[in-house]
Amino acid sequence: MLIVQKFGGSSVATLERIRNVAQRVLATQRTGQDVVVVVSAMAGETNRLIGLSNQLASEGDVTLTSKGPYVASERAGDRAHERELDQLVSTGENVSAALLAMAIQNAGGRSISLVGHQIGLQTDATYTNARILGFSHGRIRQELSAGNVVVCAGFQGLNAAGNITTLGRGGSDTSAVALAAALKADVCEILTDVDGVYTTDPRIEPRARKIHRITYEEMLELASLGAKVLQIRSVEFAMKFGVPVHVRSSLNESEGTWIVSEQKSLESAVVTGVALDRNEAKVTLTNVPDVPGTIASIFGVLAGADIIVDMIIQNASRGGSTDVTFTVPENDLKKAVAGLRSLDLPGAGPMEILSDPDICKISIVGVGMRTHAGVASKAFEILGRENINIQMVSTSEIKVSVIVHERYGELALRALHAGFGLHEGPASSAA
Amino acid sequence: MLIVQKFGGSSVATLERIRNVAQRVLATQRTGQDVVVVVSAMAGETNRLIGLSNQLASEGDVTLTSKGPYVASERAGDRAHERELDQLVSTGENVSAALLAMAIQNAGGRSISLVGHQIGLQTDATYTNARILGFSHGRIRQELSAGNVVVCAGFQGLNAAGNITTLGRGGSDTSAVALAAALKADVCEILTDVDGVYTTDPRIEPRARKIHRITYEEMLELASLGAKVLQIRSVEFAMKFGVPVHVRSSLNESEGTWIVSEQKSLESAVVTGVALDRNEAKVTLTNVPDVPGTIASIFGVLAGADIIVDMIIQNASRGGSTDVTFTVPENDLKKAVAGLRSLDLPGAGPMEILSDPDICKISIVGVGMRTHAGVASKAFEILGRENINIQMVSTSEIKVSVIVHERYGELALRALHAGFGLHEGPASSAA
Repeated sequence: MLIVQKFGGSSVATLERIRNVAQRVLATQRTGQDVVVVVSAMAGETNRLIGLSNQLASEGDVTLTSKGPYVASERAGDRAHERELDQLVSTGENVSAALLAMAIQNAGGRSISLVGHQIGLQTDATYTNARILGFSHGRIRQELSAGNVVVCAGFQGLNAAGNITTLGRGGSDTSAVALAAALKADVCEILTDVDGVYTTDPRIEPRARKIHRITYEEMLELASLGAKVLQIRSVEFAMKFGVPVHVRSSLNESEGTWIVSEQKSLESAVVTGVALDRNEAKVTLTNVPDVPGTIASIFGVLAGADIIVDMIIQNASRGGSTDVTFTVPENDLKKAVAGLRSLDLPGAGPMEILSDPDICKISIVGVGMRTHAGVASKAFEILGRENINIQMVSTSEIKVSVIVHERYGELALRALHAGFGLHEGPASSAA
Repeated sequence: MLIVQKFGGSSVATLERIRNVAQRVLATQRTGQDVVVVVSAMAGETNRLIGLSNQLASEGDVTLTSKGPYVASERAGDRAHERELDQLVSTGENVSAALLAMAIQNAGGRSISLVGHQIGLQTDATYTNARILGFSHGRIRQELSAGNVVVCAGFQGLNAAGNITTLGRGGSDTSAVALAAALKADVCEILTDVDGVYTTDPRIEPRARKIHRITYEEMLELASLGAKVLQIRSVEFAMKFGVPVHVRSSLNESEGTWIVSEQKSLESAVVTGVALDRNEAKVTLTNVPDVPGTIASIFGVLAGADIIVDMIIQNASRGGSTDVTFTVPENDLKKAVAGLRSLDLPGAGPMEILSDPDICKISIVGVGMRTHAGVASKAFEILGRENINIQMVSTSEIKVSVIVHERYGELALRALHAGFGLHEGPASSAA
């Protein structure tokens, strides 16, 4: 039996917590399993290092961004700079890995920490957001055979030229899943400060229930729930290689949420979870000339500005022009409108651009939808009963998303959560 | 032309200083030289990391030692622990290397930082105090060819198993000299916060003069002067490979002190410098049985306790017993006396142990002594004129050392400095 356990920055934020992690890891080893641990940097350390880099460039005060791609945008694409940024920030994980290995030794265990060039994680050369290409596990196998708990610095790999790369924010989750895949681990545990993935955000709906099993596909669709728990990219990786992922609390021994393939998913509920995404804005273009290439020009402008468009609705043409409505991340709304204003479309009269940031998206997700008709209509019925107006709808095989006015978002979420029976089922020990 | 420039922890202690170093390095490059930079960790960082390790072990308060071998002595010899300590502390140099490379880029230059596995410095497996075995300079050459200032993290190497090793306190000097030797650099510059090596400690003798050229051998004998400026082990390395070392200030452009082979030493002074070492204590054993093996037992006890004995005097035997006087580092005096008390010597009456911490050693050094007789007698004459009693004497080819009472140490030093004409000669710009 081989287990990969990943501990995030908050789990190794202090020496006291590192000692606790050491105890937990040793307890796992005592059950007879080989243990590979992946650690993030101590909470705050990555931001501290990025702060040093930013201050170095600015010679002034710098505001740190705590999320998003970690490279300061004004230097994005400067490869020499990004290469150094990766050399710099990867030290955060190296420190926590060495400290955890020491803590395990102090507690009487055998342990060794491995960093970038020792781990064997090969990536492409995209600094600050590298993709994993391969893995040579000779060293990890050897250290496991020697009876060690192998502590790997997360978040980092090595490109073909021997340079350190990092896997993007939250990349330690991806490291962990990649190692688990390559080592054919029985499970990849993501130990975090929440105890699993819930049917919806418990801060909005206190009756949210911890999900015991969820498929990779569902987890990807529920990104806005899962993003607080684990990096979505790691789920793609787990799906690709069929790695069972177990998200659980680092603070207790409770079972958390298993993320598995559909074959292994035993819960039969049609709907698995409901997610609310407030970071959406709606743009409506009226009087758009209905000639070939117009739509391509519009979305070409947005793509060129790195704006991800989510839902799109195009109304039927009326007299040579049409309306187009779509949603973009609320943060990108200004940039989107500015881009569209600069657009010089051929033919017809002036296009009107209407934007509305006061919307939100609610998504109902479940693999059961594939075989159960009527989920969308049931959702509309539930929202209709609450007099909530649906502005846009999109559906996929396992998801129904609706756009409603922001003020109805929480109400809609609670109504759907109740309406699809998510309050029921076995109560979670932590719920 | 290829130059290796080493900047210590105080030169990279702040982002402002790192920017200054970047400017200096670029100025050097603009003179047409290829530049390899070796950096230490930002001042205080190594101690911070060791502090984390110590606190992790102790679960209590820990006093940091700021000098001496950096591994906490209670864990010395615990290889697994020392291996992790090296993984941990080497991150300090990685951070400053990446930041300096960024600063050079920010200033418009081309630069890349290299760490342990990228530098190519191969060491043995003695964690925390590794010896350099070899060097593969493919990567550095390649980056120089690409027009980069190559910034190497100092202090660290890689052993045959791919583990990170460190070279002991001040090891960045040794890194720099080793790289200079392997790359056949024209010079290895040690840039520090003093502007060179002086004929004696300027805090004791304000008329101390900056030495322009000194031989490796002299520098080694003047360790107590040089230790504040550069790691003595790096001088041994420089001597072994004939690397010209230039110790100079990182704060100005003045010429500092060149440490070179005897052939290249042009200064003709018989005496090059005078050093005072207060960290000495004297032990006298009386009534020592004068039988074979006794002396071996005595110094065997001290060697077994890792105590380095400096001078030794044995008086002529009188009636089957003899007196032995020697010096040890003052810090080891208690341990030495305790060890000697436990000694069970065969034959004769009880041996008496007298110890005296109130002494100091003054050393006069100069390669010119090899060809100039009478340096020792001139020294005795100078000290005699000041009525300073000489307790012990030892001489080597290029050194005369005397032990005097601690209270006469500074007086003796000034008298010898003046008596051997060290006040004279070209005045240093900084003197």
